[in-house]
Amino acid sequence: MTANNAFYAQSGGVTAVINASACGVIETARQHRDQIANVYAGRNGIIGALTEDLIDTSQESAADIAALRYTPSGGFGSCRYKLKSLEANKREYERLIEVFKAHDIRYFFYNGGGDSADTCYKVSQLSETLGYPVQAIHVPKTVDNDLPITDNCPGFGSVAKYIATSALEASFDVRSMSKTSTKIFVLEVMGRHAGWIAAAGGLIEDHNIPVLVLFPEIEFNPEQFIAAVKAKVAQHDFCTIIVSEGAHYPDGRFLAEQGTRDAFGHAQLGGAAPVVANMIKEALGYKFHWAVADYLQRAARHLASKTDVDQAYAMGQAAVNLALAGHNAVMPTVKRLSDSPYQWEVGEAPLSAVANVEKFMPREFITPDGFGITPICKTYLLPLIQGEDYPPFANGLPRYVTLKNAPVAKKLGEFAL
Amino acid sequence: MTANNAFYAQSGGVTAVINASACGVIETARQHRDQIANVYAGRNGIIGALTEDLIDTSQESAADIAALRYTPSGGFGSCRYKLKSLEANKREYERLIEVFKAHDIRYFFYNGGGDSADTCYKVSQLSETLGYPVQAIHVPKTVDNDLPITDNCPGFGSVAKYIATSALEASFDVRSMSKTSTKIFVLEVMGRHAGWIAAAGGLIEDHNIPVLVLFPEIEFNPEQFIAAVKAKVAQHDFCTIIVSEGAHYPDGRFLAEQGTRDAFGHAQLGGAAPVVANMIKEALGYKFHWAVADYLQRAARHLASKTDVDQAYAMGQAAVNLALAGHNAVMPTVKRLSDSPYQWEVGEAPLSAVANVEKFMPREFITPDGFGITPICKTYLLPLIQGEDYPPFANGLPRYVTLKNAPVAKKLGEFAL
Repeated sequence: MTANNAFYAQSGGVTAVINASACGVIETARQHRDQIANVYAGRNGIIGALTEDLIDTSQESAADIAALRYTPSGGFGSCRYKLKSLEANKREYERLIEVFKAHDIRYFFYNGGGDSADTCYKVSQLSETLGYPVQAIHVPKTVDNDLPITDNCPGFGSVAKYIATSALEASFDVRSMSKTSTKIFVLEVMGRHAGWIAAAGGLIEDHNIPVLVLFPEIEFNPEQFIAAVKAKVAQHDFCTIIVSEGAHYPDGRFLAEQGTRDAFGHAQLGGAAPVVANMIKEALGYKFHWAVADYLQRAARHLASKTDVDQAYAMGQAAVNLALAGHNAVMPTVKRLSDSPYQWEVGEAPLSAVANVEKFMPREFITPDGFGITPICKTYLLPLIQGEDYPPFANGLPRYVTLKNAPVAKKLGEFAL
Repeated sequence: MTANNAFYAQSGGVTAVINASACGVIETARQHRDQIANVYAGRNGIIGALTEDLIDTSQESAADIAALRYTPSGGFGSCRYKLKSLEANKREYERLIEVFKAHDIRYFFYNGGGDSADTCYKVSQLSETLGYPVQAIHVPKTVDNDLPITDNCPGFGSVAKYIATSALEASFDVRSMSKTSTKIFVLEVMGRHAGWIAAAGGLIEDHNIPVLVLFPEIEFNPEQFIAAVKAKVAQHDFCTIIVSEGAHYPDGRFLAEQGTRDAFGHAQLGGAAPVVANMIKEALGYKFHWAVADYLQRAARHLASKTDVDQAYAMGQAAVNLALAGHNAVMPTVKRLSDSPYQWEVGEAPLSAVANVEKFMPREFITPDGFGITPICKTYLLPLIQGEDYPPFANGLPRYVTLKNAPVAKKLGEFAL
């Protein structure tokens, strides 16, 4: 068997543990040098492949690759760049094949969410349509937890742990102050369409914190919401509100929309928290504070879930093993075997069933009033935030790695994106 | 020697480590039962003293008091309530003495910032003017780090560590994304008048992160700022901006003001981050993200600085020791002996020199251009964020304590606030 090269790229919004998946890919590939000579990483994701801007990961020390396991962000750079269909943009796919051929790349590992699974699926079809054999394996990653089939998406468990912990801490703070000062704390969290992250905030209910959650899956009803806030404050003197950036009115209007859109055409959101806080102030007069966690939540490797880190690594490892076993157009998954104790194993899903499918919160995970999470939801969520996996610290701050990211010598001409 | 009782109260905004000071007070008092029979805590701060709503801390187990060391927020409740001068509101001071007499309270430990130091100072004068002997000791606490004389204020070191870590993590994230997406990340931090917390964000410069800081001490100049952002992005392709909630224009106008005021008459701020982000978008067109940390930063006990926790505890301990040594109208301080290795000891300051004095960032701590911190500032800050002191976790979340907070039987009539 001849050893070929592998291509690995990170796609879309990065997470606290996507580098742990990268670590899993590269460390596992290095154990099979007879089959995978080298892993070339795309500088800034798929753009690196299109522009032949490849990173030679063999230049990185074993220690630095190991450090990826505890370093948040995308170590090789990511991008928001969605390939069109093969028919609409054959030029880009032909270029990919050209680059793969030039660098003897036969394995394509793509680490991303739903849009990226679609890209990965298209690449997997190249071998047939363009006559070059390449095995495409998708490595799951989204903080939104919206990929189907897999029990959860690496990246989500750590955000969930961060949001639940932060909401708990801030709620303790508000509880201290409510007598004369702040009674309302609003925390805005990510999740455009799926309310999984918001749901994690609901976990603090079991720590005796009055909490209301605004999900993107539930149409926002201001009257019912204000009534619910009033009831909580009447009983507890304070209330914490977790609002998803995707919370919206029945007509689809987001609670706060900045009006700009990202490369995938998604509305760029932010600012629902002050809207909700001021709405309460106006209706009930309570003093409020609000926070928008934004990137802090998805980058917070200092508070990662050990379960999440382990699974992120396992997905990277499994992707290489699947490739070496000859699979194509698949994604390794987390398969839940039991809730308590949480047991899981690596599963496998065909990309045709993953691409462009979004997994939302099931209605039975949300309380009938629409403002909380049910016991079945807690049973689902709690295993995912178990365990701590602190990064090493040096001189007061986490000691995260910045890779050398040495380029592979180019063999082809320029390519205009 | 007869044993009398002590009163302890938390005042103003709470922190990640104010309970560590409470722990220091109570554990130390318990070692001197021959002199301090019991520590009564004010429920919701000084309001608890005025309304005779006292908490019997002797009802709390040693384990629960020890757990205060790792529990954020104010375990007994805090309040924003400033006593007027003795002349303007003699009624309240007479009530305090009445409550102290009724419960044989001879020690007054007040855990707060500048406003509270002023209250504590006034109480210390009661023994002379109202003829009841009470020793008043102020226990320093502010996330803003704006108390004079002491090397730093317990509460600050942990916020500084949280902000620097969070800014570092989010900057890694942005660096991954800047090729096709976010180039600007704006993080809004606390600090109405003093830029100490914002300065902590400047520490990430030494981790190769392009960062600009907007201090309340420097009048905001939009043209210079936009030029600085442009230069950073030209060199690094991205830039992180730390903006203090107190950043303002030369005419005093805050970058964002909600128009409401708290009980002390301070403007309630928030929302400078989106203002700065949109300003950059408009001038330079860069895609941005922004976060407002708000209470998350001061409640983030999960990422406390061990140095800060140790000092918070030591201040509580020292307060009791100062009282038992007969001192009055003083505040224990942190006295820095050396920068590296950081060595410190407990000092002491007269409250007359502490009350109503705010310590701002010295100009030499800020770079000439006004957007960064100098080496001398880093030398000051770095010791304060050293060490980690993680709370215990259970089932995925920190295991923080909620005290029983059993009331002391009332002996007096009602008192209208």
